[in-house]
Amino acid sequence: MTRRELIEQIRKKRSFLCVGLDTDLSKIPSHLLETEDPIFEFNKAIIDATSDFAVAYKPNIAFYECYGPKGWESLKKTIDYIPSDCFIIADAKRGDIGNTSTYYARTFFEYLNCDSVTVAPYMGEDSVTPFLGFSDKWVILLALTSNKGALDFQMIKDEGGEELFKKVLRKSTEWGTPENLMFVVGATRAEGIGEVRKLVPDHFFLVPGVGAQGGSLEDVVNYGWNSDCGLLVNSSRGIIYASGGEDFAERAREESKKLQTEMAALLDQKGF
Amino acid sequence: MTRRELIEQIRKKRSFLCVGLDTDLSKIPSHLLETEDPIFEFNKAIIDATSDFAVAYKPNIAFYECYGPKGWESLKKTIDYIPSDCFIIADAKRGDIGNTSTYYARTFFEYLNCDSVTVAPYMGEDSVTPFLGFSDKWVILLALTSNKGALDFQMIKDEGGEELFKKVLRKSTEWGTPENLMFVVGATRAEGIGEVRKLVPDHFFLVPGVGAQGGSLEDVVNYGWNSDCGLLVNSSRGIIYASGGEDFAERAREESKKLQTEMAALLDQKGF
Repeated sequence: MTRRELIEQIRKKRSFLCVGLDTDLSKIPSHLLETEDPIFEFNKAIIDATSDFAVAYKPNIAFYECYGPKGWESLKKTIDYIPSDCFIIADAKRGDIGNTSTYYARTFFEYLNCDSVTVAPYMGEDSVTPFLGFSDKWVILLALTSNKGALDFQMIKDEGGEELFKKVLRKSTEWGTPENLMFVVGATRAEGIGEVRKLVPDHFFLVPGVGAQGGSLEDVVNYGWNSDCGLLVNSSRGIIYASGGEDFAERAREESKKLQTEMAALLDQKGF
Repeated sequence: MTRRELIEQIRKKRSFLCVGLDTDLSKIPSHLLETEDPIFEFNKAIIDATSDFAVAYKPNIAFYECYGPKGWESLKKTIDYIPSDCFIIADAKRGDIGNTSTYYARTFFEYLNCDSVTVAPYMGEDSVTPFLGFSDKWVILLALTSNKGALDFQMIKDEGGEELFKKVLRKSTEWGTPENLMFVVGATRAEGIGEVRKLVPDHFFLVPGVGAQGGSLEDVVNYGWNSDCGLLVNSSRGIIYASGGEDFAERAREESKKLQTEMAALLDQKGF
């Protein structure tokens, strides 16, 4: 999906919601466990229930690969099931030396046909650029994450007083463009989002941490907005586990609609 | 595998060689492509040919997951085939927020039953510690990698003049011990290995970059040795693709024996 197409979807659906498919067998309703592929059945129902309100889906690969080949089958079926007007994010946090990153890129862009993959920056340029060579495919690079451990290394200041996450932003904008590179910026650090926005005015951000992790949607928009919206805000648990019973899909629909309604109001406010 | 068992294997085999199973369908001998599972057939022959000389095997997950469920089957069969006296490294470079890292850990330690997994440090403590809670299992944390991009972020100095890779070493030794935490330290930066050794005298290092990437075995030992050897030196392409013909296993045996012979001489020199 191109940047222009993504922006069109945001305008059309009045939403910049990404639904995180962190599908965990120990958390899905028990009546699904008797089906042949409970993970896919759960995801299918969630996608059906939420696709009016979401512009993106983000399966986290950890929750699939822990079941080996069967998990990868559920993942592939899930991705194939996502409507073509939705942006698909493989939340994989991969990154390796050049030749190896190329194989990871093939996995997510060719085999699974996702639009984007999250990538970890520690190994530098040649671990990231192999993902940038695919037409209409995106790298979503970890910049400032939403977890507590983000403080361990991402905030370290160099001799000139610049934090590591800012160096990652500056360096990586030499490798990719706003057409093929986004950044992960956690909602739990609202002021951080503002600092990131100053450095990279044009790039989209994938923002986890709204809801269960405590970030506020309004803050995210206040600090992260750009003229193309520039935001995909993820919610996983708050939507997909809104209910653990047979009404899980209905409740997921309600929760996603609630977020979309808030988003629509914010888009209106911004005159978007 | 425990640290003591690993050291025993090094003593017994007179080797600290790790064979990297970066098995690429476009590089394996063409006669294997007609078999039902060419990747497994290739790995099986390589393992049979080299297990007298290697103490560890390191499949890089990228080369398996690009084939989806079938690739994961080849990976599982390969890992199950590796002799139990060898240390198994899942070269996966994973790392995510706590709950998600736990799922990755289950994948590599429970489903695949590897001894260790490589982990990327960018997300900090809660992305690494979930991997450290498994008995006799290891994290191999990226510290100073062998690729060109390592210079982009790993060498950044903080206000006190300390490089990022040293901060990763110092911080992470608060999370793990020499019994469950190793570090990736590239052979292409021999003096870097010495600096790492000063900071973490007791931990094992996984050292890629000898051979195809240009690092020297003698330098690695000079800079990285500790009283328990403390080194696993990886070679992938130099062994597994020593020949592209029907004699690939024989040639792999020769190349691994050559490295083991050098290693035995160095172990003798050190009186180990």
